[in-house]
Amino acid sequence: MAIDKECKLASRSHSDERTIISINGVDIGGSKLVVMAGPCSVESPQQIDTIASIVAKQGAVILRGGAFKPRTSPYSFQGLGENGLKYLRNAGEKHGLLTISEVMDSDQISLVANYVDIVQVGSRNMQNFSLLKKLGRINQPVMLKRGHAATYQDLLCAAEYILDAGNSQVILCERGIRTFETYCRNTLDIAAVPILHELTHLPVIVDPSHGTGLSRLVSPMARAAVAAGADGLMIEVHSEPSSALSDGQQALDPEQFATLMHSLINRSSCSV
Amino acid sequence: MAIDKECKLASRSHSDERTIISINGVDIGGSKLVVMAGPCSVESPQQIDTIASIVAKQGAVILRGGAFKPRTSPYSFQGLGENGLKYLRNAGEKHGLLTISEVMDSDQISLVANYVDIVQVGSRNMQNFSLLKKLGRINQPVMLKRGHAATYQDLLCAAEYILDAGNSQVILCERGIRTFETYCRNTLDIAAVPILHELTHLPVIVDPSHGTGLSRLVSPMARAAVAAGADGLMIEVHSEPSSALSDGQQALDPEQFATLMHSLINRSSCSV
Amino acid sequence: MAIDKECKLASRSHSDERTIISINGVDIGGSKLVVMAGPCSVESPQQIDTIASIVAKQGAVILRGGAFKPRTSPYSFQGLGENGLKYLRNAGEKHGLLTISEVMDSDQISLVANYVDIVQVGSRNMQNFSLLKKLGRINQPVMLKRGHAATYQDLLCAAEYILDAGNSQVILCERGIRTFETYCRNTLDIAAVPILHELTHLPVIVDPSHGTGLSRLVSPMARAAVAAGADGLMIEVHSEPSSALSDGQQALDPEQFATLMHSLINRSSCSV
Amino acid sequence: MAIDKECKLASRSHSDERTIISINGVDIGGSKLVVMAGPCSVESPQQIDTIASIVAKQGAVILRGGAFKPRTSPYSFQGLGENGLKYLRNAGEKHGLLTISEVMDSDQISLVANYVDIVQVGSRNMQNFSLLKKLGRINQPVMLKRGHAATYQDLLCAAEYILDAGNSQVILCERGIRTFETYCRNTLDIAAVPILHELTHLPVIVDPSHGTGLSRLVSPMARAAVAAGADGLMIEVHSEPSSALSDGQQALDPEQFATLMHSLINRSSCSV
Repeated sequence: MAIDKECKLASRSHSDERTIISINGVDIGGSKLVVMAGPCSVESPQQIDTIASIVAKQGAVILRGGAFKPRTSPYSFQGLGENGLKYLRNAGEKHGLLTISEVMDSDQISLVANYVDIVQVGSRNMQNFSLLKKLGRINQPVMLKRGHAATYQDLLCAAEYILDAGNSQVILCERGIRTFETYCRNTLDIAAVPILHELTHLPVIVDPSHGTGLSRLVSPMARAAVAAGADGLMIEVHSEPSSALSDGQQALDPEQFATLMHSLINRSSCSV
Repeated sequence: MAIDKECKLASRSHSDERTIISINGVDIGGSKLVVMAGPCSVESPQQIDTIASIVAKQGAVILRGGAFKPRTSPYSFQGLGENGLKYLRNAGEKHGLLTISEVMDSDQISLVANYVDIVQVGSRNMQNFSLLKKLGRINQPVMLKRGHAATYQDLLCAAEYILDAGNSQVILCERGIRTFETYCRNTLDIAAVPILHELTHLPVIVDPSHGTGLSRLVSPMARAAVAAGADGLMIEVHSEPSSALSDGQQALDPEQFATLMHSLINRSSCSV
Repeated sequence: MAIDKECKLASRSHSDERTIISINGVDIGGSKLVVMAGPCSVESPQQIDTIASIVAKQGAVILRGGAFKPRTSPYSFQGLGENGLKYLRNAGEKHGLLTISEVMDSDQISLVANYVDIVQVGSRNMQNFSLLKKLGRINQPVMLKRGHAATYQDLLCAAEYILDAGNSQVILCERGIRTFETYCRNTLDIAAVPILHELTHLPVIVDPSHGTGLSRLVSPMARAAVAAGADGLMIEVHSEPSSALSDGQQALDPEQFATLMHSLINRSSCSV
Repeated sequence: MAIDKECKLASRSHSDERTIISINGVDIGGSKLVVMAGPCSVESPQQIDTIASIVAKQGAVILRGGAFKPRTSPYSFQGLGENGLKYLRNAGEKHGLLTISEVMDSDQISLVANYVDIVQVGSRNMQNFSLLKKLGRINQPVMLKRGHAATYQDLLCAAEYILDAGNSQVILCERGIRTFETYCRNTLDIAAVPILHELTHLPVIVDPSHGTGLSRLVSPMARAAVAAGADGLMIEVHSEPSSALSDGQQALDPEQFATLMHSLINRSSCSV
């Protein structure tokens, strides 16, 4: 594998030490599991405030919420845009949470980066190299989600575009790949965690919500990800999943999220 | 399948008649096979002129050539940018060929559209929905390549973003999908041709160069695509494949291209 | 690739010349396209006789029909067993057709081989190595179908088990692989034809019926297979597809089969 | 999904209670994690005795070891046959371990069943329906490994063949599926654990050795499987992995196995 050459800044040959990305006292890639949680889409100020309150109480430290939504169909809900970003930031500030949201286009970068702490690149844009190069010029962490059919090397080369352009704060996210099995939305590739940890020094987050697409599978897969050594989790949580404007079937309700967080408290017991 | 609803403008329910896209006397989607040919990347004025001369002589009607290149690694040749577009247009005009080139970012649209007849969206950007929406507002044909792990419905929904934004001139391109088989770069899904023809009224082009990644497989797969009913082919041709700056291993040399074109002359003999 | 070593008898390094398997004047792997046709399952003496008459009239030279059926569910029709083989042979003899049928277990080999000209190994048994070794000891041609997730090398190594045990009459069959795309039953990998022809001297047959699972796609994919250089086709034909006991949705009716055969008459026009 | 109909005996509709398979005081599918461990192949009486001693000491309760080996190439080591079974049973008896070994052909069933406690069906034979039917008539537990491209429904329908023929003692085993990612031998589908637990009452074992093919990934993936709720693990262990006759690169050495077992002792801490 030519990872050392084609993805040299991302590879372990560049750094023996794991990269820790610190944001206002939250370390991503350190010894403590980082939980990012929140709704698929920001829907209203009340909705994001309610959910922020719930996830903060259970120990999440980063609030997620989409404002620009990459939907397969143009007729699906496309997100609230800048208003969504405002509501997200307000809810984050009120409940002491960092924020993360997705950027879909290079002309949205400064807008999104202005509101959130971490800029997310979705799986469909993992190889949008123009976008990646421009994200390499901002001074903020970027979370890069693995594409549906991206190999580990593809993912690291995509990260390399950001690193090479000058931004060393890159977080990787495994969120499921496409396989012949269609019972779930995707096949969550838990082995990506130890494999990426051997190939790169960058932190590795797992998203079992998109990785399975079914709320009842989120908790066992979250525990599996932690047991395999994930640095963090991204979990979709909604106060009323059945009325969510997008992806409600994969969101945990407040009680399910509380149960999951309790089972994860003692992370070291699983990852010895 | 919800294609009639989620991709209504792209679906057969919207139009019983096949869409024919006419550009300066060239019909894409009509009764005549359309061949797009040229190098992976425009490398110099001389290179693209030489190749244009070769492909025009053999019956190609559209000249391809990348100026902005989506390369997996940031350290690979990234294309000549605007100069590449100029050289491409000059060569096309000189040899009586239409031109096609890829746009990688929404801020390149007006530049690329200014130089070429058909704007191409690569497989890695098939679900770059911001880009698609903006391409829906230009008055030029767009060729949309299928993503590595995109279903037929995903492809049609991506086309729908362009159609719904007002541009009805969309061409689809099958270029291989990712499977467990790694002998080739991709698995060229020839069945996409008759399947897309039953699902949509849009023209379907096949790219056996990316679809196989190996020049010796390009001709048999090109013939297979035509036999399955493809409206056109996109073929990589280089005057000296071994010295190409990108993807030389999948380019036909002038003699191979001539042989292929001769075998395709009588299209009807295969597609009865 | 270690094909020359691990599959040495199957590989081109063992033989530069294509293997031609001759059975009663029918050459498989020669210059003439060989068409195997018939129902998924033998259902009755009348059914197989009617279908044999139809396919013989249109130019098929080998009659297919299952007597032992590998069905995903134990509650689906499992075939007529030895009676099915008898009816198949009688119909073949009456209409001047060779016969092929599947063996599912090593203890059925002598029974099946006694009735048919070519013994078929289905995709689910492609790596049933005990069965393959025993088929290496019979003096009859064996057609080996590619497994759902078998690489070209896996297929050749499976053939090697038969060749190494002493039976040189092996025919390969591409019948579709499993991918993320579920519109069709399988993704028919047409590139397998030229690729297997470069890796091995054995004949290559394509089965577009299983390869697509949908009768309306069988003819375009059959033509594509021929255009790519296939040595033969295996086509499911039923006198009344809608009342077939198995796989009726992928069977051609007599008229569709006649139309397909007419379009294939002049094979050379496509495969120049 | 038609699981309730096509795989009715395997489905949860047949039994609300989880099936526990008890063999000489070992419960598979009960509250305690069951570890099966041993070499890929039985190589000699000394080798299997040494390894049995090691794995028994660390808490494994079932000794694995292949005597009939399904190897991709006919020129690879094919196993010791009946002698291998003898050595396996002797080592198991001496060290107080149950035994499991693979059957490759229906004519080996009585031989294998005579020596071992659990008869294993390998992934390549998962849809060898003749073999499955005959295993339905023995009075011993059968462990059925998921095929490389088998859906959950395919796996349950294969189990149904055994159950329907009269043998209710079926154990399922997830061992990785084939995907586009080739860094590992397979993609271990950890989600299969909670999904199979919702679809069926049968116990679910995970094999991270075949599921990854790389010894350094076995322990994190074993922990992930347990965290997701697996009823047991099958782990390849060799006293000297580098000199193993088969699959040495995926075997744990004694120290690695000891470390893994210590990390698994307190199962409940992960699977709450």
